[in-house]
Amino acid sequence: MEKIKPRIFSGTRDFLPEEMLQREEIVDKIKGAFRRYGFLPVETPAIEYLDILLGKYGDEGDRMIYRLAYEEGNTLALRYDLTVPMSRLVAMYHGQLQYPFKRYQIQPVWRSDRPQIRQGRFREFYQCDADIVGSEAMLADAEIVALTNEILSALGFEEFVIRINHRKILRAITLHSGLRLEDEPVVCRCIDKLDKIGLDGVRKEMLDSGFGDKVADSIFDVLALEGGHEELLNRLLSLLGTAEGAEEGIGETQELLQDVGRLGVPADNFRLDLYLARGLDYYTGPIYESVLPAHPHIGSLTGGGRYDELIGLYSGIDVPATGTTIGLDRMFAAMGQLGMLSERRTTTRVLVINFGGEELAVALAFTGSLREAGIAAEVYYEAARLKKQLSYADRKGIPYVAIIGEKEAKSGRVSIKKLASGEQETLPLAEALNMLRDKEAE
Amino acid sequence: MEKIKPRIFSGTRDFLPEEMLQREEIVDKIKGAFRRYGFLPVETPAIEYLDILLGKYGDEGDRMIYRLAYEEGNTLALRYDLTVPMSRLVAMYHGQLQYPFKRYQIQPVWRSDRPQIRQGRFREFYQCDADIVGSEAMLADAEIVALTNEILSALGFEEFVIRINHRKILRAITLHSGLRLEDEPVVCRCIDKLDKIGLDGVRKEMLDSGFGDKVADSIFDVLALEGGHEELLNRLLSLLGTAEGAEEGIGETQELLQDVGRLGVPADNFRLDLYLARGLDYYTGPIYESVLPAHPHIGSLTGGGRYDELIGLYSGIDVPATGTTIGLDRMFAAMGQLGMLSERRTTTRVLVINFGGEELAVALAFTGSLREAGIAAEVYYEAARLKKQLSYADRKGIPYVAIIGEKEAKSGRVSIKKLASGEQETLPLAEALNMLRDKEAE
Repeated sequence: MEKIKPRIFSGTRDFLPEEMLQREEIVDKIKGAFRRYGFLPVETPAIEYLDILLGKYGDEGDRMIYRLAYEEGNTLALRYDLTVPMSRLVAMYHGQLQYPFKRYQIQPVWRSDRPQIRQGRFREFYQCDADIVGSEAMLADAEIVALTNEILSALGFEEFVIRINHRKILRAITLHSGLRLEDEPVVCRCIDKLDKIGLDGVRKEMLDSGFGDKVADSIFDVLALEGGHEELLNRLLSLLGTAEGAEEGIGETQELLQDVGRLGVPADNFRLDLYLARGLDYYTGPIYESVLPAHPHIGSLTGGGRYDELIGLYSGIDVPATGTTIGLDRMFAAMGQLGMLSERRTTTRVLVINFGGEELAVALAFTGSLREAGIAAEVYYEAARLKKQLSYADRKGIPYVAIIGEKEAKSGRVSIKKLASGEQETLPLAEALNMLRDKEAE
Repeated sequence: MEKIKPRIFSGTRDFLPEEMLQREEIVDKIKGAFRRYGFLPVETPAIEYLDILLGKYGDEGDRMIYRLAYEEGNTLALRYDLTVPMSRLVAMYHGQLQYPFKRYQIQPVWRSDRPQIRQGRFREFYQCDADIVGSEAMLADAEIVALTNEILSALGFEEFVIRINHRKILRAITLHSGLRLEDEPVVCRCIDKLDKIGLDGVRKEMLDSGFGDKVADSIFDVLALEGGHEELLNRLLSLLGTAEGAEEGIGETQELLQDVGRLGVPADNFRLDLYLARGLDYYTGPIYESVLPAHPHIGSLTGGGRYDELIGLYSGIDVPATGTTIGLDRMFAAMGQLGMLSERRTTTRVLVINFGGEELAVALAFTGSLREAGIAAEVYYEAARLKKQLSYADRKGIPYVAIIGEKEAKSGRVSIKKLASGEQETLPLAEALNMLRDKEAE
């Protein structure tokens, strides 16, 4: 066969062991938080029928869906996010699910986007979603916010803020400013760009959308309201009171904020933020997004909200739902930038030296007993010079080396060398096993 | 938007929580074994350039590769297995990898095959691979066999056999029977069908391949040799001695079998089996496959071998490698059939009852403290009747319910009900927390 140049498609990635160990550590912590909150895992196939995906992500989204080559009468595509497949799943298994259905899902998604590697935009990336399906209660939204707090804390973030807003409030602001109900998505998309283009940019977007200066002024006047949660909500209520959705949105937000506090989320970690809009069209209630105020360039680490009408697109019956997405890649990038990732080149604890001959028989048996005791152990595959084997352990960062030479083999002993200090002691095999087990438990 | 019928592509699957919990338990045990043996995780993208994949899996395999719709000058396809992407990865990162490079990889693969759900053949399924790259030593192959033993034992299989053979022995048998070197793959593919079509079927395949009765007789005479490992290898040596590869293959097999035993694999769990051939073309040395002798219909649970020339297709330099694939779906199906899967509907330990009002404030704080103590807890989202909430806990299989009514809330107490027995006791919040934590540690 001819030699083929080894390469990968731009915007996709290989993850080598050092990075994988870090990614797995993050995923394990996130999973642990999901479990403590009673969320259960679900997986859906990478391949979906194209019509299941189309029309959910806006025109730009539709264009970014990866299509498969035509397959025996089937028009197929790759998963674009985890919310739509989950909604499709709930519609399919509606009768047999227990509600509230609290699921998490950690799987890759694909977008035929121009990759921007430096900005962390890829064609294949992992999403990590938690959703509560089947409850209209604001307490469910409060749980999603508390879960977000739990995850960010578990990962070691200290100063973060979960921004909270409510689509019904944004709707009331839209109507109050003289616009119509159907303008709400446009208003939200304009405000959503605030982080990228600033207040002046948002105003320009609004004018470009044909809203006029008076409308923009009115919107910005409401958004600029200030005060503690209670105070701000009261001001909102007296300003927007008669607009459709205002009373309900403000009341629900009040309940949500109260429940978040009661669940133990520190007051510094969450905030009502009228400037939060979220770009997606399918939100119908509270929305949330978490950021690092000291690192605005990092962008949002998590984002979500309530979407009570999406599942109905498939099932025909509306099923209320709320949830959040955790951007694994952005989380990983942020933790890297902030020096929060632990660096390990291996998880192996002991390298057993290979001198060949009868010594190898003892060495292999000792390797087996280490593993049986739950201690990660490797044996060097070639009967090489000691120096070469020590250098392998050193390069890999394996902390202990077990040396069984002729003398040790004959007397049923082993020399354990601690690479960091160079300390070495020779002791009976069983004692060495116990010592290494004790070190493991430390 | 119009309602869209929710459905998935035949041969792909949704995994609901109960099944996911079982699958995760299996994956965690397999990962644990990988780690104890010093293997580290790697992931590669789902999307590969088509030419990276073509020509590695035979003509039938090439036809089963899923192609993406043409993408801006790129001809792309979905990963078909994990061995080829790993070989591509090693070729790309050759200079920066530490050898031996011991990687594991657990990711889905896609095959445009006619799905046979009952036989466990799917279009999307997980593979789980462990490979050692960069060592020619038979000890590396012995480690793969010992790792297979470790995994099957960890999963709870009691009677299994890892069948072992060597492609050089099969080559010598081919030459000894009067065939040419290039007939070896055909001989292997014929023998590989033994489980499906029996000895007569294999003979017919050979005749259909144009080998003639005399050749078939000669091959079957060698395959039928019997005896313990030493005896069998000696008989093979005296029969095949002068055929190319015989001496080397037999010597290497002897070494491999010895090392497997020294690593602590019980003699009953592995066996030299001349009838093992494996269908893939790229094997060059020892091959292995594990089966359950008492359940022949289940087929092989794991399979692998040495492939010293595959990586060279990409790198231009041969890099020796050996490894095994664990068929997660077949493993899962086998464990289901043999009643080896634990059944859990949830991992939540405590449901906290919601009566609304001021009681809810205490209930939410208690929920938060349970989670902080590492105890998986849910709170019911609606202030519903107690009966309805108890029935939710019961259906989900949540073992404990925490009830904070008006009386409890006022006195800082909580009633803990154990659903299995109906026992209930009322105690101060802090004591209840300790009690549940102790139960958790049991």
